[in-house]
Amino acid sequence: MSISAMKKATLSGESYKIMIEENEIPTHWYNILADMKVQPNPTLQPENRQPVTRDYYADLYPQGCIEQEFSTERWIEIPEEVRNIYKIWRPTPLVRAHRLEQALQTDCRIYFKNEGVSPAGSHKTNSAIPQIYYAARDGVKKVVTETGAGQWGSAVAFAAQMYNLDCEVFMVRGPYNQKPSRRQMMQLWGAHVTASPSELTAVGRNQLAENPNSKGSLGTAISESIEYASQDKDIQYVIGSVQNFVLLHQTVIGQECLKQFEKIDEYPDVVVAPLGGGANFAGICFPIMRDLILGKTKTRFVASEPLTCPKLSEGEFRYDYGDVGKKTPLFAMYTLGHDFMPVPNHLVGLRYHGAGPIISQLAKEGHIDAMSHDQKECLQAGILFAKTEGLIPAPESTHAIASVIREVNRAKQEGKSKTILFNLCGHGLLDLFAYDDYLNGKVS
Amino acid sequence: MSISAMKKATLSGESYKIMIEENEIPTHWYNILADMKVQPNPTLQPENRQPVTRDYYADLYPQGCIEQEFSTERWIEIPEEVRNIYKIWRPTPLVRAHRLEQALQTDCRIYFKNEGVSPAGSHKTNSAIPQIYYAARDGVKKVVTETGAGQWGSAVAFAAQMYNLDCEVFMVRGPYNQKPSRRQMMQLWGAHVTASPSELTAVGRNQLAENPNSKGSLGTAISESIEYASQDKDIQYVIGSVQNFVLLHQTVIGQECLKQFEKIDEYPDVVVAPLGGGANFAGICFPIMRDLILGKTKTRFVASEPLTCPKLSEGEFRYDYGDVGKKTPLFAMYTLGHDFMPVPNHLVGLRYHGAGPIISQLAKEGHIDAMSHDQKECLQAGILFAKTEGLIPAPESTHAIASVIREVNRAKQEGKSKTILFNLCGHGLLDLFAYDDYLNGKVS
Repeated sequence: MSISAMKKATLSGESYKIMIEENEIPTHWYNILADMKVQPNPTLQPENRQPVTRDYYADLYPQGCIEQEFSTERWIEIPEEVRNIYKIWRPTPLVRAHRLEQALQTDCRIYFKNEGVSPAGSHKTNSAIPQIYYAARDGVKKVVTETGAGQWGSAVAFAAQMYNLDCEVFMVRGPYNQKPSRRQMMQLWGAHVTASPSELTAVGRNQLAENPNSKGSLGTAISESIEYASQDKDIQYVIGSVQNFVLLHQTVIGQECLKQFEKIDEYPDVVVAPLGGGANFAGICFPIMRDLILGKTKTRFVASEPLTCPKLSEGEFRYDYGDVGKKTPLFAMYTLGHDFMPVPNHLVGLRYHGAGPIISQLAKEGHIDAMSHDQKECLQAGILFAKTEGLIPAPESTHAIASVIREVNRAKQEGKSKTILFNLCGHGLLDLFAYDDYLNGKVS
Repeated sequence: MSISAMKKATLSGESYKIMIEENEIPTHWYNILADMKVQPNPTLQPENRQPVTRDYYADLYPQGCIEQEFSTERWIEIPEEVRNIYKIWRPTPLVRAHRLEQALQTDCRIYFKNEGVSPAGSHKTNSAIPQIYYAARDGVKKVVTETGAGQWGSAVAFAAQMYNLDCEVFMVRGPYNQKPSRRQMMQLWGAHVTASPSELTAVGRNQLAENPNSKGSLGTAISESIEYASQDKDIQYVIGSVQNFVLLHQTVIGQECLKQFEKIDEYPDVVVAPLGGGANFAGICFPIMRDLILGKTKTRFVASEPLTCPKLSEGEFRYDYGDVGKKTPLFAMYTLGHDFMPVPNHLVGLRYHGAGPIISQLAKEGHIDAMSHDQKECLQAGILFAKTEGLIPAPESTHAIASVIREVNRAKQEGKSKTILFNLCGHGLLDLFAYDDYLNGKVS
């Protein structure tokens, strides 16, 4: 390669990472309920279809989280004990994707927020830490949760270790056996991990009686966790998405982005995030969507989903359970049905059947555009990103990259140069098998 | 837990990460040869035991690296095209290990430099990038290297992708089959990975003829790589450690540490780094050792080695080959013998038989203290670190943590409070199996 070609390939002296200091970690979470013109439909008790109350949740969630679930205060203070743990990995870098731009031959300026730098490798720690902090404050001895491939479970195991609580994780049996990395990670942080379905709960025992070889499902693992927690008041259940307070905790992401953009005097025209239950999407979008709601900006918000789990694109807006076992209350949301199962060879995450009530309400009002992608498109986008920016994205995050590529093409057609921000919600170092399957022609 | 106990556990508002800006990435590498009172013995051609020349290396290394190998200039400029790629992950954080200090009940202030934030997960990219830049500048089309568990190979695959060169990696057959993660990572970045011994070289074919089930060794993979490169002038061999220029490239680490310590008005009393071939050790130590050589400070430098590969602690200082196949020149170094093989169940890396000539000379002069640790001590130290600081260290890095723990005890005995710095040279996300083996009682 000639020196000039190399100079071009390695780009100019422009900066990549827009960093802010530890003392700029947000001091408050942003509660979008305070600014929404129309509030989401209330979450209902399945027994009598009455709105859930603080009392209803009392046995399920930590006291601090329950307060937040019902709060309409705009800014909710982040406890110092939580911010001190956030400092392990926050503020996360906002990064200009110069090389991706070059590969896409676009005038658009593409930025990503790198949430993959957390110890557990994803944004999930942003909520695991406060939930377990509030659980510890309530005096419980142990937390329990469910996990599929292990992303949420590892965030919980890390958080439990930080606050010296015991931790039990019900991990879907398929990945428990076949993808041991995150199980090993949880165990390293001191968690006890049980393959679900298990003999520890009635839900699990029933499933095993029906099918002793069951590989499990996330819905079953949720039901087992909730049942396990209900057996002992010293055990606290924690949850990775959907609930208002989980979305709230994630808003540190978008707030940091705003400070980082301010530092370089820019503002995003488009914000893209993967959509699972809604937590990482809310985290990066809500603080920026506030400006849209207040009429200050016209930013477009894109929710990226798998074609095989297209809850916003093709789901129905109605009341539905959050889990297969109907242990959760009824949420007003876009859903594919609480018994929805993605195709068995689904590699790319985001397989939850519904979008949290706040997300669903905002989508209903037209504030969110959904975009869905098949696995090949996602993994191709992930490989392009890894080959240009060097970082290996989590399969979940590849959806956002696929959407960004479409947004870039759209801008080209419109003859516009836009500032596009997306959430790199996690790294893919423990998901290399997904890329390997694709590269070996095993992805259909 | 009470709130006060939790406040204590999560610590005060002190900062954790000492960050510097992208424009503070060093502009020059530091060449310690310029300050060494006694130069290392010359590296010799095995054929006639005459000192190697630029011509001798001409077919082996890129031109830019050869110049650096023989240079005694103190500061060698880092090309802009290299610094621009460094920006992907540099400057790396210097982190105060508050929670580890607390767990060790020490007054010492412990800091670590987190080189695990690079895309390939270790310090190795610091040299892979310039080596492949110089190779590209020489006009070659392809680079080749060897790798054991894949840490160096993945750094090379990443670097080759950044400069658009083809990449061939000979990976030791054992980990190629049993530890697929880093192989998948290299392939994702576009490298071609071949299990060694292979049919592609005479060295490989001979070994396979002798033992068709050979699991290979790093020494064999080095020999195969060098032979493969020698077959075609468009193919360039690159090397992960030992040579002066590799150690040189790593000195960005220590220079950044000095700037970061300056920012908080501190200076290390002790610097600890794992010792493989010497690259990461040199990287963090040399810029700080300069002050020692100039008589400005009395910092102590500790090289942490495996008890099963104790080249500084128990090796002999003499001329030896860098590889099993005797393809390299003869280096004056502490060595366990070029045909040394660590025990088969060795899990924790750092299994190279010798320490680069500069390191060896400095050790001979008493500037470096060696400390060796068995696998259990290392993995226990790694688990303590993961449970306190949250980050999961590479097995190589756990040696440094084990040494830090001993240094803390020493300080306690001396009644002193010291500032201790260590190199967290890589993360262990792709080495979780080692911790798993330990936790399951499989480590002897």
